[in-house]
Amino acid sequence: MEYLRQPSISAHGQGIAEVGEILLAWLQKLGFTAELKPTAGWPMVLGRRIEDPNLPTVMLYGHYDVQPADPLELWESPPFEPTVRNGRLYARGVGDNKGQHTAHLFAMESLLAAHGKLPCNVIFLLEGEEEIGSPNIAQFIADYKDELNADLVIISDGPVEHSGQSTIEFGVRGIVSFELRARGANQDLHSGNWGGVVPNPLWTLIHLLATMKNDRGEITIDGLYEHVEPPSPLEREALDKLPVDVDGVMAELALARLDMPEKRPFFDRLSIWPTLTINGLHGGYDGPGSKTVLPCRAVAKCDIRLVANQTVADIMDKVAAHVQRHAPEVEFVRLGGMDPSKTPIDSPFTTPIRQAIVAAQGKEPLLMPAMGGSLPNYVFTKTLGLHTFVIPYANADESNHAPNENMEVWRIKQGIRTTASLLLHLAQLS
Amino acid sequence: MEYLRQPSISAHGQGIAEVGEILLAWLQKLGFTAELKPTAGWPMVLGRRIEDPNLPTVMLYGHYDVQPADPLELWESPPFEPTVRNGRLYARGVGDNKGQHTAHLFAMESLLAAHGKLPCNVIFLLEGEEEIGSPNIAQFIADYKDELNADLVIISDGPVEHSGQSTIEFGVRGIVSFELRARGANQDLHSGNWGGVVPNPLWTLIHLLATMKNDRGEITIDGLYEHVEPPSPLEREALDKLPVDVDGVMAELALARLDMPEKRPFFDRLSIWPTLTINGLHGGYDGPGSKTVLPCRAVAKCDIRLVANQTVADIMDKVAAHVQRHAPEVEFVRLGGMDPSKTPIDSPFTTPIRQAIVAAQGKEPLLMPAMGGSLPNYVFTKTLGLHTFVIPYANADESNHAPNENMEVWRIKQGIRTTASLLLHLAQLS
Repeated sequence: MEYLRQPSISAHGQGIAEVGEILLAWLQKLGFTAELKPTAGWPMVLGRRIEDPNLPTVMLYGHYDVQPADPLELWESPPFEPTVRNGRLYARGVGDNKGQHTAHLFAMESLLAAHGKLPCNVIFLLEGEEEIGSPNIAQFIADYKDELNADLVIISDGPVEHSGQSTIEFGVRGIVSFELRARGANQDLHSGNWGGVVPNPLWTLIHLLATMKNDRGEITIDGLYEHVEPPSPLEREALDKLPVDVDGVMAELALARLDMPEKRPFFDRLSIWPTLTINGLHGGYDGPGSKTVLPCRAVAKCDIRLVANQTVADIMDKVAAHVQRHAPEVEFVRLGGMDPSKTPIDSPFTTPIRQAIVAAQGKEPLLMPAMGGSLPNYVFTKTLGLHTFVIPYANADESNHAPNENMEVWRIKQGIRTTASLLLHLAQLS
Repeated sequence: MEYLRQPSISAHGQGIAEVGEILLAWLQKLGFTAELKPTAGWPMVLGRRIEDPNLPTVMLYGHYDVQPADPLELWESPPFEPTVRNGRLYARGVGDNKGQHTAHLFAMESLLAAHGKLPCNVIFLLEGEEEIGSPNIAQFIADYKDELNADLVIISDGPVEHSGQSTIEFGVRGIVSFELRARGANQDLHSGNWGGVVPNPLWTLIHLLATMKNDRGEITIDGLYEHVEPPSPLEREALDKLPVDVDGVMAELALARLDMPEKRPFFDRLSIWPTLTINGLHGGYDGPGSKTVLPCRAVAKCDIRLVANQTVADIMDKVAAHVQRHAPEVEFVRLGGMDPSKTPIDSPFTTPIRQAIVAAQGKEPLLMPAMGGSLPNYVFTKTLGLHTFVIPYANADESNHAPNENMEVWRIKQGIRTTASLLLHLAQLS
């Protein structure tokens, strides 16, 4: 409760020092050597408790920063006054992600109370900039590689699957963001006096974008699918087992159809295939009725979600080359990116993790080859070479990034039980 | 000066009654029977002076309404305090179009002072809604056909050719305006969680628009070129004689190239070919940096400039059918239009008009088969079946629709001389 009361909004820099103190004290109480590690932005909280060098070492990663709380008027109780109502704990950051990584801390407190020691070694790492895109984690991980010598990484963040069932997520998609800027004349012009004479930057962008994705839903940027691989038999099996209520999704979002290609299985769309999304496209008149203007500039902002084996560097270069080849007059602006990450479903850790979840929750988890969104997990899988598992504890309707963020209290308790079970089961690998 | 001091902004309804009084009094002083004719909007000013039913009757059309004057702070003298500086008369509406149709009035005053009568019959018609798209002129012309029994129509509006040379414009392009509205989900969504699953209305519009015009500059709306005809030999000759400084235009507008198709002669672009201009296209994120949003709606506003033989009704239906065929989920909204108009270059009136201009100005005018913009001239050519000639008197840099609108004083005087010469030369046709 004390922890939830601190705003720790990374975007505003509020309450960061306070949560640092709380977390260091807590870790030290649990017998961790704990430090605030400076970065170019907000510091990392790094705690280590090594029971025995011969035991496996689990790294638990989370983030102590939260999203801004506005619009405040939509909250039923103030975002930084944690409140329990109808079995849910309401507070900004309770699901994303304070309630989830404190489940880790409470689990270790319980294990220590029961056994006097942890079943395995634990490295506990909390970032303070996840909600602003983790701009400094890659540098930190590279700099502190030696202190991060774990065997695997476990992250509890995000919600469980829509059906409410627990999930193990083996991968995350990466992302590349860029902007396309087209110019026509040096001023807006009259479409009658100049239409047909002066190039229209909106047409320039439309013809360029039409070369980047066709109306069958296939991305046609030269070479974009080069490293996209079909799912392995195990991934295929896992994808096919994921429950999905397509009609329910379509009704909830008022969709007449799914995106093209029409026949693609639902979870293949999020796990197996990259996407090219236009996030925004703007040029010319935006008022009521008509205006006979020939606009002088237009901008499109896009993101590409990357799947395993694709890299930010390669895809950014491919898009740049494609733009250069098809519309050299269009300015290509690199806005940044994050590599994808994937851990094999047949990792040696999968079985103990599944067994731990069954022991704690009484039910097999779903196996999701990759989730659609992006997290900086590549720093664990690629920089550190560690298998990385996302095991969400929050309810599907946690309202993260929205007003009335909440976590069901029973799920916090189940999370505590699950973490304890995970550490106990993973210890058996040694 | 008194006339210019009245705002008569049709969009704001200011000073309309005052200019009506001024114009009626002026016409009556010139021996016209003159009336304000009510319409569903601002009234028409209609004056008739019939010297002899056996003489030709010339209709002079103009408009007493003006554009709004904002941004006021950019005017060097107040827009409704007419001021002469460096040989130019500055005032809102002086070029567009008060200074031009008062040249007609002054010419008739001079002819009456010199001869006691006009050389031919004159119908003088001023509209009060030209600057808001002439919404009621078609109905008025149809209703008052019997009082508009002229032999031809002369309009002095717009500027002379860029080179400063006088021009006879035989046609105007028409226009069709429409909006394309695409919807995805019922809310903006996260591009990672939903990209690849939920259709993106920006992609829907891009793929639709890409079927409407290709990257070689050809409009590919089914059937759009059906009634587009090549220029007649006389039009070809006239087009080829029009002076054009393409490098100068490109430098002035900072263009790297002209619009596609690359090889199309400059004035063919404005006279012979329809255009499809996207006036505005908007959807999704429009702020700095990137935002991983999958937008839920997008809107494009477009106009098509029509050339002779195309009609608003036919083209609007063709676009609607094209949209229905290629993207039935996109809403097609008809925003209105205006038919094109064309008078043959070898009209029996062309020779006396050319001779009149040579007599008044000492130089042959340029012949322009059609101008790029749109005027409601079809009501004269189609509803009344009259040959219609646009003979601009204003300087090319008149800044109509902009601050510091002006007309060179010598051009007003030349306009008076030219109108007198036109009436004298056209009288000889009887």
